[in-house]
Amino acid sequence: MMFETDSRPGSEFCVPLALTLLLAALAANVFAADPLPSWNDTLPKKAIVAFVEKVTHEGSPEFVPVVERIATFDNDGTLWAEQPVYFQILFALDRVKALAPQHPEWKSKSPFNKLLSTPKEQMVPVTEHELMEIVVAAHSGMTTEEFEKTVKDWVATAKHPKTGKLYTEMVYQPMLELLAYLRGNGFKTFIVSGGGIEFMRPWVERVYGIPPEQVIGSSGKLKFEMRDGKPVLLKLPEVDFIDDKEGKPLGIQTRIGRRPIAAFGNSDGDLQMMQWTTAGPRARFALLVHHDDAQREWAYDRQSQCGKLDKAWDEAVAKGWTVVSMKDDWNTIFPK
Amino acid sequence: MMFETDSRPGSEFCVPLALTLLLAALAANVFAADPLPSWNDTLPKKAIVAFVEKVTHEGSPEFVPVVERIATFDNDGTLWAEQPVYFQILFALDRVKALAPQHPEWKSKSPFNKLLSTPKEQMVPVTEHELMEIVVAAHSGMTTEEFEKTVKDWVATAKHPKTGKLYTEMVYQPMLELLAYLRGNGFKTFIVSGGGIEFMRPWVERVYGIPPEQVIGSSGKLKFEMRDGKPVLLKLPEVDFIDDKEGKPLGIQTRIGRRPIAAFGNSDGDLQMMQWTTAGPRARFALLVHHDDAQREWAYDRQSQCGKLDKAWDEAVAKGWTVVSMKDDWNTIFPK
Repeated sequence: MMFETDSRPGSEFCVPLALTLLLAALAANVFAADPLPSWNDTLPKKAIVAFVEKVTHEGSPEFVPVVERIATFDNDGTLWAEQPVYFQILFALDRVKALAPQHPEWKSKSPFNKLLSTPKEQMVPVTEHELMEIVVAAHSGMTTEEFEKTVKDWVATAKHPKTGKLYTEMVYQPMLELLAYLRGNGFKTFIVSGGGIEFMRPWVERVYGIPPEQVIGSSGKLKFEMRDGKPVLLKLPEVDFIDDKEGKPLGIQTRIGRRPIAAFGNSDGDLQMMQWTTAGPRARFALLVHHDDAQREWAYDRQSQCGKLDKAWDEAVAKGWTVVSMKDDWNTIFPK
Repeated sequence: MMFETDSRPGSEFCVPLALTLLLAALAANVFAADPLPSWNDTLPKKAIVAFVEKVTHEGSPEFVPVVERIATFDNDGTLWAEQPVYFQILFALDRVKALAPQHPEWKSKSPFNKLLSTPKEQMVPVTEHELMEIVVAAHSGMTTEEFEKTVKDWVATAKHPKTGKLYTEMVYQPMLELLAYLRGNGFKTFIVSGGGIEFMRPWVERVYGIPPEQVIGSSGKLKFEMRDGKPVLLKLPEVDFIDDKEGKPLGIQTRIGRRPIAAFGNSDGDLQMMQWTTAGPRARFALLVHHDDAQREWAYDRQSQCGKLDKAWDEAVAKGWTVVSMKDDWNTIFPK
């Protein structure tokens, strides 16, 4: 567009020019707006942007059609925190306490009696097997709809023992920006988590913008049953699928049926997903979040019970995958 | 928009008016274009259109937000034909013949010897158990990538014994229009089929416009394995999930995690999916395709081995679900 201009200040002919300049400035600004403001300008951010530009630039030899832009994200320790233990375990402990009045037999039955007699602020000494019993008790014996309501209520009210925040406030701001950035570039974002699929679905759409049909997780067996002529799905006390380690590529194959071109994780449980992702042809991207920020979050890796990062770290270094230092690469951890 | 008009023929002032009228005519035409031309103007079509208008009309009490517009489709007998037997069985028979040179032991092992010694045009008398052995042999012992290539090759070349068509030419034109019509109205379309998930995915995106991540089906167990430092997924000779009858709502819950608002099927294997779908709150839609056209396709229902329609038909009548007569309600069966 061309404008006839007039140099006299205040002239009405100046308005279109001023407007044009303003619009041009705004447009340039929008163009330059940083989609990842919580990421420092260090290597991980540069690697992410370089990858996305490469696969989305039509005509580039590495161009990937929109339908194949699948990105998979671990949840615990990758999208939200996972200390002192996986949040789903804290949910299960709360559930068992809430269900106790309906289970008088728990008063004399281990591990439930141990859990119920321990004050809230103390850790309960349970074995891994006992913990599994507690988790199964908390996740079965109701319909899928009843369970969904339970999760929604818990997520809306329960607070983290250390930070006092709602658990959904302990998601990582840089990862929220990354999810949005990828979706803005035509990616379909999936969660591929060892966590329970029905524990995640009630809130991840609101919090991460990821719809239930793009959530893959561990799951228990279900039973279809008619109750007064209405069908319900009952949650049985049996594990059906564990979406961890080798389970992640299997879950990706059976649920998505397409190999991701980018995978994001933080622990050894994500190693096989990253191997599977990066073994595909053409450009691939793998990123590990390293929890090394004891001040703002937690610092743990090779020795941790939750989110152990050991073999996957070695392989990331050997293969040149991107490793994020929360301390050095993120200027913000949780949303403000 | 208003136009100053001039009644003199040929006047330049007439041009805008003529143009406006032309555009209006075009617009009206586009508006009136029938999205379901292969459907006769009988009850099923009216019911489909009424449902879609109701749930997509903002302000309507039955309005459904786009993210909740989930529609699930059975495949065999609903989107493509299924006679004289499920096409996947014909694929399995062809596979066993192709694999025979690598399995000299099959020459003396039932049911493989029976199958291999029967001329192509003759039916092989096998029990249900023997058939399962053949199907398992054809669907395991290779990687997922090798299997995908096998399916693609077969679908590109194998011809139906009666029609001589490619199997992918035996999809139902009215259902292709229905899929497109629903997607055009913001629906996400899923396949929920008893057929093998890895048998469908290699071609359903091209043929139905349904991406692999929106396909739910039966599946075998997989094993993650490293081969020369590269991960592969091996197909094991073990069933993991049967997506039929009660399995359909379970598959919908674990894979989609949201109750469909519309379900489309043709047999008793779809009954529970329709019960689950229609038991949700607000407007729901269920449709059964009745194969009653021996001239243009096949006629079968209560007594059929493949696609038996008996209990689901009774329930459809009792509950007022839509039942399509292929003979009366479809003016075209296969794409031309």
